Amino acid sequence: MIERSTVEMIAAKRDGQELSPDEIRRIVAGLLDGRVTDYQMTALLMATFFRGMTDAETVALTEAMVHSGQVLDLSGVPGLKVDKHSTGGVGDKVSITLAPLVAACGVPVPMVSGRGLGHTGGTLDKLEAIPGFRTDLSTADFIRTVGEVGTCMIGQTKDVAPADKRIYALRDVTATVECIPLIVASILSKKLAEGIDGLVLDVKVGSGAFMKDEARAKELAAALVRVGSRAGKHVVAWLTDMNAPLGVSVGNAIETREALELLFGRGPADLKEITMTLGAEMLVLGKKAATAQEAEKSLQHAIASGAAARVAERMIEAQHGDPRVVGEPSRLEVAPERFDVVAERAGWVERADALVIGRAAVAMGAGRARAEDEVDKAVGISVLAKPGDRVERGQPLAALHLRARRPEIEERIKSAFAIADAAPPPRPMRIARIEG
Amino acid sequence: MIERSTVEMIAAKRDGQELSPDEIRRIVAGLLDGRVTDYQMTALLMATFFRGMTDAETVALTEAMVHSGQVLDLSGVPGLKVDKHSTGGVGDKVSITLAPLVAACGVPVPMVSGRGLGHTGGTLDKLEAIPGFRTDLSTADFIRTVGEVGTCMIGQTKDVAPADKRIYALRDVTATVECIPLIVASILSKKLAEGIDGLVLDVKVGSGAFMKDEARAKELAAALVRVGSRAGKHVVAWLTDMNAPLGVSVGNAIETREALELLFGRGPADLKEITMTLGAEMLVLGKKAATAQEAEKSLQHAIASGAAARVAERMIEAQHGDPRVVGEPSRLEVAPERFDVVAERAGWVERADALVIGRAAVAMGAGRARAEDEVDKAVGISVLAKPGDRVERGQPLAALHLRARRPEIEERIKSAFAIADAAPPPRPMRIARIEG
Repeated sequence: MIERSTVEMIAAKRDGQELSPDEIRRIVAGLLDGRVTDYQMTALLMATFFRGMTDAETVALTEAMVHSGQVLDLSGVPGLKVDKHSTGGVGDKVSITLAPLVAACGVPVPMVSGRGLGHTGGTLDKLEAIPGFRTDLSTADFIRTVGEVGTCMIGQTKDVAPADKRIYALRDVTATVECIPLIVASILSKKLAEGIDGLVLDVKVGSGAFMKDEARAKELAAALVRVGSRAGKHVVAWLTDMNAPLGVSVGNAIETREALELLFGRGPADLKEITMTLGAEMLVLGKKAATAQEAEKSLQHAIASGAAARVAERMIEAQHGDPRVVGEPSRLEVAPERFDVVAERAGWVERADALVIGRAAVAMGAGRARAEDEVDKAVGISVLAKPGDRVERGQPLAALHLRARRPEIEERIKSAFAIADAAPPPRPMRIARIEG
Repeated sequence: MIERSTVEMIAAKRDGQELSPDEIRRIVAGLLDGRVTDYQMTALLMATFFRGMTDAETVALTEAMVHSGQVLDLSGVPGLKVDKHSTGGVGDKVSITLAPLVAACGVPVPMVSGRGLGHTGGTLDKLEAIPGFRTDLSTADFIRTVGEVGTCMIGQTKDVAPADKRIYALRDVTATVECIPLIVASILSKKLAEGIDGLVLDVKVGSGAFMKDEARAKELAAALVRVGSRAGKHVVAWLTDMNAPLGVSVGNAIETREALELLFGRGPADLKEITMTLGAEMLVLGKKAATAQEAEKSLQHAIASGAAARVAERMIEAQHGDPRVVGEPSRLEVAPERFDVVAERAGWVERADALVIGRAAVAMGAGRARAEDEVDKAVGISVLAKPGDRVERGQPLAALHLRARRPEIEERIKSAFAIADAAPPPRPMRIARIEG
């Protein structure tokens, strides 16, 4: 058979035909070596937006992106390696607790995370609030730390899935981000390059999530599980609520404080629920528990015994940070001034909008609007009332931690809240579980 | 209102929203000055492939492309200037007869033509078979010749609609050619830049045409008429058959010979029919005839009186060619060797496939597969039997004019013909007339 040219492959996708795995490999390789131009790639991406991709195509794209760069070899670390990925939300500091907690239960967690962008925070920014903490370890140091400590949390190096970076940069400026198979391939390529055996996905849905719509989020979760499984990994996904921020704290140092408290069993119920749910899945995928119930007991024990906190200390130490923050989270510097936003009437909190609060946090300096922006680790928001809570007039809904008063931020936070005469129907944090 | 960014405009088109004329102007200007990248343009073009464009958008795109370059000022030439455009076919030499014929009836015809590409020939290549003939006149010489002679036939300069050239080059390599509003804008922008008042379109349909499908061709014709009219021009379109080559000759010198013969009323019936039909429309648009019947009389008279031939001579002379070819078409050099392809059985010709014959002509050297290829003006094919003709066994179906025998070309030509036991249903040359 004669190989189809790039323009013929674009036409095939445009007309709803399937591309072969080999054709997808040629496109990805061609993009990197110049045989496929950026302007051909973006036409193909837009055609893909309209026509979608089969699972076979998405697997081929994922694997081609994985193999465009370095794939970590964790075969020297015994046991099944399991990671967690969240599609991103406001107040989502789960990884910081989860990695040492799961590692303490015997499942190695090699975690490569991202920085905050847009209204959602990033694990790397939060971790870097720990004095001295470094997220730019070498690959060798990362693998050694996973082996010795059980977990390590670093940033993506430029050697990981360079084709994904190239394609994402093109999608970002051509309105082709919101395309499920492309999202799936992008997420999975970065995670598969970690050399993991299993992956637990937290697909957020709601105002503060990338996916606002439950049906679309479910579609994404299902595609992630299907494609990840076809790529030979054990994958489970949870759909979880992101209409209100997760936990109390939104910011960097303040979120890391909250995450560290959770290692001792202290902290807000919603954050605990999500952390335990995802952690239990990780133990089951890592074959350290037969059931979720057994896994949760194991996690509880790692908290109660102090084992989880000890892993966190060792991880922070291995990453050049001050391990004393684990036992004394107040060592993390939070901005000195506090300004409360109070309820103007009594009633039930109906809404504490994650998107509005996330954007206000960015405006305070806790996040970045552009990749090159600097982040102020010390500023943040405490969300003191959540949907379903009863509040009295004058009661604080949120506290702003700032270096100086910013009335416009207070206004924005106020607008995030709605108070009603009756309690809203309870909204579960865990919406659905999707497995292969 | 805040201006939408390029990526927002791409997203709007992707989601089926209309872009404003100002936005389309900004995109076209941005493509030329670098604010819109090629890879954003191709994403937008692919989104346009799926979503289409409203007539208002297509008018805006056409006009933005026209004004990206030089627009000829023919206001110094009295009368309404009218041109003809064909979407291209095999054996379509109509322009060469039509321009002097219509000019002889008093309607100035400023004609900017293209070169052959793919399986269809180009008017410029055919004209250049005339010894000395130049198609690269300056704008000033072109305008003067239209004024003095009534017509002039040149190639597109780089100053005409540069945005169209840029966009077409991107479409060509990104599978976004087959998109009616983009085709409409591309055709009309080049023609409107000629400074014409009226335009007659010959939209070909059939195996040898760009549009194989009658419904799609009709859609294109209707869009051309609507958009051209909205852009302030008088536009009429004819849908004509292109399943078999037009006329007898396919090639360059051989087609120009046939076109010149037609100036004296000699030549094949199908070619005459199309030429008279389009010419009559041009006279009516140019207000030199009230009805098509009156116009046809005028055209017949210009042929019978020798006026059309005299305009052709003057035009050729003004364009540095040898005017004696008009009276003596045999002065055009045709390849010396003739090889016949004969009927293997008696019957009725059912098919003389224009696409197969057009591609064989390219393989002979009469056309070009790539823009940079050289063309052999002297080679060509005489199509001696057309659908509906009765043939006997051994009777020539086609004659190949070559410098040396090429059996593989004979095989290809043979495969273009099908002979049946009964006469096929007659197929009209003129399928439909579309006006605004």
